[in-house]
Amino acid sequence: MSKGVVVPFGDPSPGGRPASLQPLLEITADDMGKIDRIIYSYAEAHVELIPKLAGHLISSGGKRLRPMITIGAAKMFDYAGETHVKIACAVEFLHTATLLHDDVVDESDERRGRKAARLIWGNQATVLVGDYLLAQCFKMMVETENMEALRIMSSAAADIAEGEVFQLTLQNNVATTEDDYMQMIEWKTATLFAAAAELGAVVAGRPPEEQAALRSYGRNLGIAFQLVDDALDYGGSSARMGKKVGDDFREGKITLPVVLAWRRGNEEERAFWQRVIEKREQHEGDLERALELMKKHGALADTVERARHYGAIARDALAAFPPHPARDALMEAVEFCIARAY
Amino acid sequence: MSKGVVVPFGDPSPGGRPASLQPLLEITADDMGKIDRIIYSYAEAHVELIPKLAGHLISSGGKRLRPMITIGAAKMFDYAGETHVKIACAVEFLHTATLLHDDVVDESDERRGRKAARLIWGNQATVLVGDYLLAQCFKMMVETENMEALRIMSSAAADIAEGEVFQLTLQNNVATTEDDYMQMIEWKTATLFAAAAELGAVVAGRPPEEQAALRSYGRNLGIAFQLVDDALDYGGSSARMGKKVGDDFREGKITLPVVLAWRRGNEEERAFWQRVIEKREQHEGDLERALELMKKHGALADTVERARHYGAIARDALAAFPPHPARDALMEAVEFCIARAY
Repeated sequence: MSKGVVVPFGDPSPGGRPASLQPLLEITADDMGKIDRIIYSYAEAHVELIPKLAGHLISSGGKRLRPMITIGAAKMFDYAGETHVKIACAVEFLHTATLLHDDVVDESDERRGRKAARLIWGNQATVLVGDYLLAQCFKMMVETENMEALRIMSSAAADIAEGEVFQLTLQNNVATTEDDYMQMIEWKTATLFAAAAELGAVVAGRPPEEQAALRSYGRNLGIAFQLVDDALDYGGSSARMGKKVGDDFREGKITLPVVLAWRRGNEEERAFWQRVIEKREQHEGDLERALELMKKHGALADTVERARHYGAIARDALAAFPPHPARDALMEAVEFCIARAY
Repeated sequence: MSKGVVVPFGDPSPGGRPASLQPLLEITADDMGKIDRIIYSYAEAHVELIPKLAGHLISSGGKRLRPMITIGAAKMFDYAGETHVKIACAVEFLHTATLLHDDVVDESDERRGRKAARLIWGNQATVLVGDYLLAQCFKMMVETENMEALRIMSSAAADIAEGEVFQLTLQNNVATTEDDYMQMIEWKTATLFAAAAELGAVVAGRPPEEQAALRSYGRNLGIAFQLVDDALDYGGSSARMGKKVGDDFREGKITLPVVLAWRRGNEEERAFWQRVIEKREQHEGDLERALELMKKHGALADTVERARHYGAIARDALAAFPPHPARDALMEAVEFCIARAY
């Protein structure tokens, strides 16, 4: 690694324009096009229902941020092979499998602005197609014949599952500590971002300290991403997210804004959080009251502040590398993810 | 491979005693003891609920037939390393993960004579702990650093999931063809038996034709095993199986006895099968009527006949190998599996 290059946080683009995902999108465009084709070919199966159900989610146009990070990281090291594309697909498959199981577990009605697969094909098929995609993820990884990459992916899969189970056990406890909450999103969300970034360095054959730097970038970006997502669920517009404001609230999810509002609340307010989140007894006007309490205690602003903290670490993880269009694009992507919150 | 050795089918034991699993149990006993310890260590997790839920199923005392096949196959080649034990554990984990998801999909109330995990901890936790075990299966496989073994395991996982989805799509069709049914159990059940056996040859570094022979042994044993299971569900005693007679019937499952009874039935009988299996409208006396129709058309006897056919192929797959206590035990295990049906 070269000596550190100082990049002023909060002003990532040379021209002073607002932070954008555009540079990363452009740098990864060719490879992301290939990913699309590979994803559809691996979602194929003899049993028709599998590509139909998987395709419903795959074609609903998620940002594909995780595979894009793998591609961007490989580009940053001027990797010239093709294996990064397959690994990026495997990353997206693991993510898609998780989303399918998530929807069943959360009893979600919508995903990426579309009716959730489970409402069309049922919980049963959704669980099993998730299993299929998880298996296809590992088949793809085996085809790369990269044992280190396989190690990272299988650990990520285990961590994600552990995070999901942990989330379930926290579900009915508004007194969840911030530490427990952070541990949960570390497993549930940050692990896959960390793996996605690290795999870009692994496929490029970079030394351990550079792999670790990319892992750190991904991990901290993932935490920031999840915290912003949590804040957006109480403040973003449904048009931007393909998600309606208040989804987490209606599902009674414990997220950082709730954790903070409960901790900072008085007795009467805590009783409110217990009723709406733990007991999920929700009436007309409760969401508005929740937003009001979050505003009163700065719960949303401070959730975004926490996100900025992790975002800064993510950027610094890459700051030690020499300037490179892909590195700069990855750093700007952090800023973009956080800027979504405003 | 040595020249073929003729083994008379249906009389597997030299002393004329009834076919038993005992020889295989004895040959694999030491290694199976190790498996127990490894399984519990890999079911461990930071989140307490994971070992609790997984342990409920793991400790309920299944036969562990699949890992026993892996160990037996490795022994047959006088494999002297330790990797076969870890691979056998991974086989059992994949199987356990499948059972957990199966119970959710089938809405089962019981498994191995115990209350199903989903009824104690809920469908959500059961799905997620299944995911965790699946991920742990791959972590174990990665630790063996055997790429060929990883290829076999990841393909098996994909096939199992495809078989499960296929089963779901056949669920409401009593007119399912025997071919479709066989394809389904090939994926759902036979694949893992095939992988379990093949992995024993792979870990012992045997040439491709011997791997293929073991794979054929496992595949055909798996089919026979499933068919016998199907027959037992209408004729075995719950004491022997830890399962109540008629479980498949109550769940409206399409199995070979139903497929045969429907195909051989008259119009009125077909209407009966449609009502009880497709529509799951079941009344007092329906199970007795189903058993009567199966008896009338020889559906159970012929299901077991089909099982014997595949059992014979399984035995012949090993017949070409030189005599060896482990080979003989594996061959007798086939006979034992089929003898359960009587």
